[in-house]
Amino acid sequence: MTQDRISYASSFATRLPPAKAREEATKKYNFGTGHNDPEAIPVDDFIAAATNVLRRDGKKLAVYSLGGSALGYQPLREVVADKLKRHRGVDTSIDNVLITSGSLQGMDLVNSLLLDHGDVVIIEQFSYVSAFSKLKWLGVDALAAPLDEGGIDMDGLAAQLEQLKSQGRKAKYIYTIPTIQNPTGSILSLERRHRLIELSRQYDVPIFEDECYADLIWAGNAPPALYALAPDRVIHIGSFSKTLAPALRLGYVVAPWEALGQMIAFKSDGGTGALDQMLAAEFLREHFDSHVEKLTKLLKGKLDLLVEAIDREFGTVANVQVPLGGLYAWVRFPDSIDARRLAQEAAKVGVAINPGPDWATVPEEGTHSIRLCFGLVTEQQINEGIALLAQVSHDTFGVPVRSGNRANTGNA
Amino acid sequence: MTQDRISYASSFATRLPPAKAREEATKKYNFGTGHNDPEAIPVDDFIAAATNVLRRDGKKLAVYSLGGSALGYQPLREVVADKLKRHRGVDTSIDNVLITSGSLQGMDLVNSLLLDHGDVVIIEQFSYVSAFSKLKWLGVDALAAPLDEGGIDMDGLAAQLEQLKSQGRKAKYIYTIPTIQNPTGSILSLERRHRLIELSRQYDVPIFEDECYADLIWAGNAPPALYALAPDRVIHIGSFSKTLAPALRLGYVVAPWEALGQMIAFKSDGGTGALDQMLAAEFLREHFDSHVEKLTKLLKGKLDLLVEAIDREFGTVANVQVPLGGLYAWVRFPDSIDARRLAQEAAKVGVAINPGPDWATVPEEGTHSIRLCFGLVTEQQINEGIALLAQVSHDTFGVPVRSGNRANTGNA
Repeated sequence: MTQDRISYASSFATRLPPAKAREEATKKYNFGTGHNDPEAIPVDDFIAAATNVLRRDGKKLAVYSLGGSALGYQPLREVVADKLKRHRGVDTSIDNVLITSGSLQGMDLVNSLLLDHGDVVIIEQFSYVSAFSKLKWLGVDALAAPLDEGGIDMDGLAAQLEQLKSQGRKAKYIYTIPTIQNPTGSILSLERRHRLIELSRQYDVPIFEDECYADLIWAGNAPPALYALAPDRVIHIGSFSKTLAPALRLGYVVAPWEALGQMIAFKSDGGTGALDQMLAAEFLREHFDSHVEKLTKLLKGKLDLLVEAIDREFGTVANVQVPLGGLYAWVRFPDSIDARRLAQEAAKVGVAINPGPDWATVPEEGTHSIRLCFGLVTEQQINEGIALLAQVSHDTFGVPVRSGNRANTGNA
Repeated sequence: MTQDRISYASSFATRLPPAKAREEATKKYNFGTGHNDPEAIPVDDFIAAATNVLRRDGKKLAVYSLGGSALGYQPLREVVADKLKRHRGVDTSIDNVLITSGSLQGMDLVNSLLLDHGDVVIIEQFSYVSAFSKLKWLGVDALAAPLDEGGIDMDGLAAQLEQLKSQGRKAKYIYTIPTIQNPTGSILSLERRHRLIELSRQYDVPIFEDECYADLIWAGNAPPALYALAPDRVIHIGSFSKTLAPALRLGYVVAPWEALGQMIAFKSDGGTGALDQMLAAEFLREHFDSHVEKLTKLLKGKLDLLVEAIDREFGTVANVQVPLGGLYAWVRFPDSIDARRLAQEAAKVGVAINPGPDWATVPEEGTHSIRLCFGLVTEQQINEGIALLAQVSHDTFGVPVRSGNRANTGNA
């Protein structure tokens, strides 16, 4: 007796986010979500890692947290501490690393630690859509810190903090993605990092640092993580979704025990999925650097192709902020193009894109921008999809004007 | 630079549960948590399942939710629907099954769906410690429905509902573990199930049914799940923690789409860990019945040994409610034994037990009871641990009086 209706809807909580619709079919040209490249999944190595780790630790599955710490599987915390030390300048103990079910859970934990209904936080002008939706559900106001091509404009942030102070308010945190910003792909300079920490101290506002994409940098290492510079001021989160595989739900929070001990009191999930942790640890402790090198090379190749395709199809109509790493390109259009309408029309021909307003703290500021993810799409899909998008844009808004060189589409 | 202190503690939220202490060493005789038997983990079969499923679906790990539904990995939802049909009388579509990160997340989702700060719910007189702690953090009052050896006493529940009504209040749900109650191990009769649903309709209070232990029944099947009898009135959760492995964080919510579509709007975790889901589905679709049969036989053997040991060591001092399945025995002592103090003293000699007040809606009603988990302990640990516990009880409270037959301890 499959049943669609309930008789207890009147008992629902008073504040709920909008219900989800049943899922639609996936789009053929999917530039819409932070998926990764299926060809970058090392299936044979995963099978070897699963076999080894199950042989060694499989019986421990009978015990919560594999009989170990509530912070997570120790070998995976060791992988995190090691890569943070070698690549992000963070010298920390595994006792300061908490494994989470993706960085989305990390975000929930930080929010639960710091936020009350009615609080205010500062978020980069353009940022992660789920950060916004979580805050909205919590009843927390988000103010925008202005961004330029180098990340947060520190004078703008200072003005924001000062204005709040003059109103007798204080932000509960400054949320930033300093290293491969989402969606703009920028890297915050060391100078700005120091200035940010100064502002954090001056106004007594902690920093919530999200480094989900920091492993995927095209050339060399970025400046150290903010956490490396001021562990007493910063809560750091990261993820293996982008580096390894998004369906494995693995992220981490790095913070002193004074914060972590409080977080695990409400991380009441009985631990993070053990097998995801075991496989990731077993694979990454041997292959982290070589895997990341291969993956970034693959992604950089797709980005180059994407930028070429946008240039070919849109010409001067599109202004691409070329990212320094990661999975996304942020594209600005002239005022004549409305991103939401473009996304709706594109969906009809099988092209999924992210309209800028969803990625903007003040939605209107994203009206003429879109985010394109190049992780999942193949080279052919990039060429065909961007050509289709330009055609839809032309048909809907009259730009780009179609020129002779369009005939090359798909042959690049 | 490992750092223990933070400078932003003044920014913490106003309502937080007590911070966790750093972990203590595990106790040798661990009757304290719902762990399972390491010998029951079929490591070779797990390796075969992991190999097969990674070979088939491994590349899908590059895509959130393996490219499928936000409800979870389809083969695992099929396993749930199939076993609910064959064993619990529930005829449901996989579209009504949401895979969660353990039933603890299922509990969070149900709470988020139905509860506001200041609400009241009804919970069985003795119940799951995490249900209490979650409600406390949410600021929700829990009233006790009286239990007897057959589960909820329906006249007592009716009185509770009537009293609330006379106060102009209405409970937001009745939380029940009808099939192998935790901690008492009872099974609610079909007659009582029908009465419970009648009361739910009469007082317009939905039922929150937790069937975490329903797969582990000693003899034959129990009456159908409450959800089978009234899908419009009941939200059903279950788990693979007990049936398969607690470190795999896998549970499920079964409900009509009207409730699930709302829940996945705030299940903002990017999905449940994929590899845990893939392994469980691949293994269980072939081995569910044979695995459960083996496991229940193993657990029943340990329970029999535990009951013998308690009888031998405590005699008439201990009143064991022998469970009809599951992992726990609920033991009542005379008024002279204080369960919290017994747990503290027992911990000093390496014996972990659960003091009754933690498992009681009104803590005082559990003052003289304890919960013993027999999942993890070996036969030898059962005999030695219960002998130690009796010795501690004797030394602390003067009961049980030690008699000649104690010399047999450990040789059973």
